[in-house]
Amino acid sequence: MDISSLIQKNDTKIVFIILDGVGGLPINKKTELEAANKPNIDNLAKVSACGLHIPVAYGITPGSGPGHFGVFGYDPLQYEIGRGVLEALGLGIELERSDVALRCNYATIKDGIIVDRRAGRIPTEKNIELTKKLSEKIKEINGVKIILKSGKEHRFCLVMRFPKTITDKQAMVIDTDPQKEGQPPQEPVPLNEESREVAEIARQFIKMAEELLKNEEKANYILLRGFSVIPHIPSFDKKYGLKACSIAVYPMYRGITRLLGMETLSVEGDIKEEIGLLKKVYQNYDFLFLHIKKVDSFGEDGNFEAKVKKIEEFDGYLPEILSLNPDVLVITGDHSTPSLLKAHSWHPVPVLIKSPYVLGGLVNSFTERECLKGELGIIPAISIMPLVLANSLRLRKFGA
Amino acid sequence: MDISSLIQKNDTKIVFIILDGVGGLPINKKTELEAANKPNIDNLAKVSACGLHIPVAYGITPGSGPGHFGVFGYDPLQYEIGRGVLEALGLGIELERSDVALRCNYATIKDGIIVDRRAGRIPTEKNIELTKKLSEKIKEINGVKIILKSGKEHRFCLVMRFPKTITDKQAMVIDTDPQKEGQPPQEPVPLNEESREVAEIARQFIKMAEELLKNEEKANYILLRGFSVIPHIPSFDKKYGLKACSIAVYPMYRGITRLLGMETLSVEGDIKEEIGLLKKVYQNYDFLFLHIKKVDSFGEDGNFEAKVKKIEEFDGYLPEILSLNPDVLVITGDHSTPSLLKAHSWHPVPVLIKSPYVLGGLVNSFTERECLKGELGIIPAISIMPLVLANSLRLRKFGA
Repeated sequence: MDISSLIQKNDTKIVFIILDGVGGLPINKKTELEAANKPNIDNLAKVSACGLHIPVAYGITPGSGPGHFGVFGYDPLQYEIGRGVLEALGLGIELERSDVALRCNYATIKDGIIVDRRAGRIPTEKNIELTKKLSEKIKEINGVKIILKSGKEHRFCLVMRFPKTITDKQAMVIDTDPQKEGQPPQEPVPLNEESREVAEIARQFIKMAEELLKNEEKANYILLRGFSVIPHIPSFDKKYGLKACSIAVYPMYRGITRLLGMETLSVEGDIKEEIGLLKKVYQNYDFLFLHIKKVDSFGEDGNFEAKVKKIEEFDGYLPEILSLNPDVLVITGDHSTPSLLKAHSWHPVPVLIKSPYVLGGLVNSFTERECLKGELGIIPAISIMPLVLANSLRLRKFGA
Repeated sequence: MDISSLIQKNDTKIVFIILDGVGGLPINKKTELEAANKPNIDNLAKVSACGLHIPVAYGITPGSGPGHFGVFGYDPLQYEIGRGVLEALGLGIELERSDVALRCNYATIKDGIIVDRRAGRIPTEKNIELTKKLSEKIKEINGVKIILKSGKEHRFCLVMRFPKTITDKQAMVIDTDPQKEGQPPQEPVPLNEESREVAEIARQFIKMAEELLKNEEKANYILLRGFSVIPHIPSFDKKYGLKACSIAVYPMYRGITRLLGMETLSVEGDIKEEIGLLKKVYQNYDFLFLHIKKVDSFGEDGNFEAKVKKIEEFDGYLPEILSLNPDVLVITGDHSTPSLLKAHSWHPVPVLIKSPYVLGGLVNSFTERECLKGELGIIPAISIMPLVLANSLRLRKFGA
């Protein structure tokens, strides 16, 4: 149901913490959360409503976009972020409604055939050098501004900034990346009449880049994919009546939350600096989102011990957050990232909701297995926000 | 799925008990159900299928209409009761298909501006006096019968009884209540061509009432809202093949169950009288619904002890119900009403299904926390009736 019609505003404060990829799997019988010495989180779990959430659907492993959309109450099956847009957000590009974003690879071509889709994973320094050269030589095409930004190794991002608003119907162009080596690149064919302009700029860009890169040994070609524009999504304010901010170190999470209309606050450093900022801006917002990245990063590295340590480090800062005395405090993850898998996974994610209006007393610690005993049960990620709003007394009764 | 196609009739008997608003939250660590000394319910829970139900959706607090619709298997998001209809049902008016019902307030107007939407909450006696006066002077408008009934304080109900059937499309008229003071009342504007007649009667009624009330100090005006007709809902008999009756002291619950096609039996008193009636009519029905109101009333008063006592009082009568030996016995609530919140809430509601075909042995008592361990898990309210029908062996196999 659309809960926007039930929203009532009040002065409560909500702190919503994502420990990115916090869910895990046992190695030597214990998951990362079970192995971590985290007395503060565990004590909080004892008096909170606990459970697990399914980010998208049973068995589905979410990317960062769907993972965050879900916990913020935006159905990831309804709202999708294009590959190009996600890449741009991850590189810190502030996208506008007049932008088409693309994910690009440097690649190796020989006699018209792609022999390496990743140009031998060239060093990032080489990527920076080449992207700088392309940027200086290709500033605009047909009156459309060209913005390039290096990623890691062979990856970079292209944004076409038009002088007018661009819709998703105007950016329906086939990827040039054939996804397989030993084949020629595909043409950037427009899928409808309205996308001809974007396709033509892509075609010219490829041609100009090929000329500029022709003497490179490895990175002598480029492949484009994920033509996309920023999605139309009702803002947090419109959907929930919440003045929201996002505290995140990594650009991608600032970008995702900016799409949801949160004010994205810049912060350098790690947990300590983020919590310092949280305390500083606490009075200015109804809803404060805190994103802790490195739990996921160590999971993706398969570094069980480092993921455990990062959870423990966060635990040490929890009393500072609790001292703000938010009306509702949520701790969860956007998805699981078991060190065992070295990747995001489909497993349900522990979730904890602290409020004055819970049963509590059902779990002994904040872990995958203990949270199964909690009062929330196993819930879809998109049910978390209605529960958060209910617990902050921000939802009116439904029906007479 | 539509289970109507799977219905098979038999001679089983189902007793379905709603302890209105029974779910609660801890005060001094115990919920109302946990604090109550209720050996009979607890012993029954030990051998029953237990769990919790979500009345409408996660985080959604239901009104009485959606709460009852859900547990009876009618999706509250699909079937809605209008404000006017609910008010009429609550006052014991037996609505017909030719009726348009409205919720009305006595109000104070000065120089065309509403200065008090509730006329200073006039005493109910004053309301009765004024409503009698209006009733005597306004018996019909344009051939449409006008039925008025006093509620508490400033509230009353207006029913327009037409000589013909009226559909919801003919009753789409804007509320005259501006919902804020310091503003003029709104005109009863019809939202479509078909609703002109209803709007015109409303306009004339307001004018006549204003003239009759003009010398009143406080209640010198009336505000109308919630223009509505009784919804089209498949009856219990049609949907489930059940001959059903409803035993409820309060008119609203008799009204809601009459909408579902149950025979509504009048009873004065409280639990004792209701159970006396249950025993008396037991042989006449397949499905007997028993509604215990005051559990909710004390919850809404914030009177934890009185709510506990009312649960204990019901417990004392349970052996009488069990002695009837129904094939399936259900005990649940339509929603939670924690004394802590003094209001309906969004929390899952304990549910118990006693039948010969359950696992049992999973819970020690009928409480919010114990029911989490039960075999039903946390289920949507609309899943209760299919389970009840299955346990009474009234559902055929689906598919070959």
